[in-house]
Amino acid sequence: MKNKYVIGIDLGGTKICGAVASFEGDIISKYTIPTEAEEGEEAVLARIITVIEKVIEESKVVEDEIVSIGIGSPGPLDAKEGKIITTPNLPFKNFNIVKPIKDKFNIPVYLDNDANAAAIGENVFGAGKGTDNMIFITVSTGIGGGAVLNGKIYRGNTCNALEVGHMTVERNGPRCNCGNYGCAEALASGTAIGRIAREAVERGESTSLSRFEKITSYEVFKEAEKGDAVAQNILNEALNYLGICVANIITSFDPEMVIIGGGVSKGGTVVFNKVQEVVEQRCFRAMWENTKIVPAALGTDAGVIGAVALAIMESN
Amino acid sequence: MKNKYVIGIDLGGTKICGAVASFEGDIISKYTIPTEAEEGEEAVLARIITVIEKVIEESKVVEDEIVSIGIGSPGPLDAKEGKIITTPNLPFKNFNIVKPIKDKFNIPVYLDNDANAAAIGENVFGAGKGTDNMIFITVSTGIGGGAVLNGKIYRGNTCNALEVGHMTVERNGPRCNCGNYGCAEALASGTAIGRIAREAVERGESTSLSRFEKITSYEVFKEAEKGDAVAQNILNEALNYLGICVANIITSFDPEMVIIGGGVSKGGTVVFNKVQEVVEQRCFRAMWENTKIVPAALGTDAGVIGAVALAIMESN
Repeated sequence: MKNKYVIGIDLGGTKICGAVASFEGDIISKYTIPTEAEEGEEAVLARIITVIEKVIEESKVVEDEIVSIGIGSPGPLDAKEGKIITTPNLPFKNFNIVKPIKDKFNIPVYLDNDANAAAIGENVFGAGKGTDNMIFITVSTGIGGGAVLNGKIYRGNTCNALEVGHMTVERNGPRCNCGNYGCAEALASGTAIGRIAREAVERGESTSLSRFEKITSYEVFKEAEKGDAVAQNILNEALNYLGICVANIITSFDPEMVIIGGGVSKGGTVVFNKVQEVVEQRCFRAMWENTKIVPAALGTDAGVIGAVALAIMESN
Repeated sequence: MKNKYVIGIDLGGTKICGAVASFEGDIISKYTIPTEAEEGEEAVLARIITVIEKVIEESKVVEDEIVSIGIGSPGPLDAKEGKIITTPNLPFKNFNIVKPIKDKFNIPVYLDNDANAAAIGENVFGAGKGTDNMIFITVSTGIGGGAVLNGKIYRGNTCNALEVGHMTVERNGPRCNCGNYGCAEALASGTAIGRIAREAVERGESTSLSRFEKITSYEVFKEAEKGDAVAQNILNEALNYLGICVANIITSFDPEMVIIGGGVSKGGTVVFNKVQEVVEQRCFRAMWENTKIVPAALGTDAGVIGAVALAIMESN
């Protein structure tokens, strides 16, 4: 029987990372170059093609054993059309990135946003292996998400499903970058935790946070761990809102598993205990008892593994 | 070519309604009897079988042209196992209702909760005809919902998906029957609107509502329409929370359509205008511009038509 491989491309604002991998998720070859986004659409496209050529060459895999290519990219994008609509750190504007790559390599090419690719990665190779219905959420600078429902990625009507960072969790909460008030992202993202801490210091609250020149969520986690009451309170509030967001996801999707990744999830037990506590308060017992809330399993290669998993899921 | 028909059974606490219908949704025969729930599991099962026999007989359809039976029932239930777990107004406790009916009539029998059946009914024959991704919510005594995603009913892991009445929309809101605080159901259902109005009258607020002996959401809608400021304010608040619930559904599911049914939706323009306004404030433009929010189209026969549609969708 012929061996089968796919190519995954993790397209980011600073670098393009590609890999050839087996259907079991073993990376055969990997290659990374800077994106150089300022050079424009065609130049970045050419660099993606270079990465693909390079990983094929280095993998020593026979070219017709490679069955498809998956690309994970920041959105918003149109996965069905293969178009990147617009995204802050890449030059593409309504640019069909799938067609030229498909024409070049003569195999199917699949595009999806990075949160969906990460969700698929966790489903195929990570914490969600073996689940049919799972939600992945990433909590870092922003809050995003992706869903695998009935064993397939669920994109929704405009490829924007699981924009859970913009779920309203506090009617009169702070203004979010999106224009709405009280979004989960404005109350529970890493960025929000840092901002709320800086505001506390500026108000003159008595906290060990005031000795830092730059306060991010990292310092808030550290000082809370050391016993600073202000930091603990900020974290508790933010995680309460994250818990409400997760509870609403469980109430809506009734998933087998909610996987939480991103910088804030690195906070570990303090994060997962609080989220679990809020979920148990706010969801039906029959639902929370059957929903595991767990950290993401994929590490530094999550982006490219997600793109590999996208190629595999869409090839099945 | 042989004509194909299905049977739909709307199982309720007070009556059992059955129908034979064509795949186009035309009802050929219909029969309704009281449930007499107090007589117990076997008696109610026997009455369901009676209804099925009666509608077959009256339809004059040849028995082998009937391909399946759909049953819509209050939940919670296990659709995969065909079991009603427990429900306030029916005698069944962990009762497999599908197996005896399947054994009796020798055709596939499908069970689902009434909100899912209503969602399927709207998708196959109602306002959601032709959509692949749509959410149905019913706002009456409680708030429930169902989702058709990628053309199929989405049930979730424990058959409880779309329990959107228990989405938290106000962190410190009033206590809900489910034990949580600030559920949509406790703030925006018909029951909630009536309760909030009675509380306003008890507090002695100056409102035309005080002249009613019994205040339900119906009186609140009526008095608001006539210009009573207290009634208008109560309604505006409740519909604001309903709007947050719908906005969070759109942000999570990115559907083509949200269909709102149930008693409160009969409020008409005042309901849909307010929900639309809140959704436009709280969702991404790209999402709300592509999501129609519309009233349910199926009327008095919605229950049995939903069960018919369930049988058809599952037979496809």
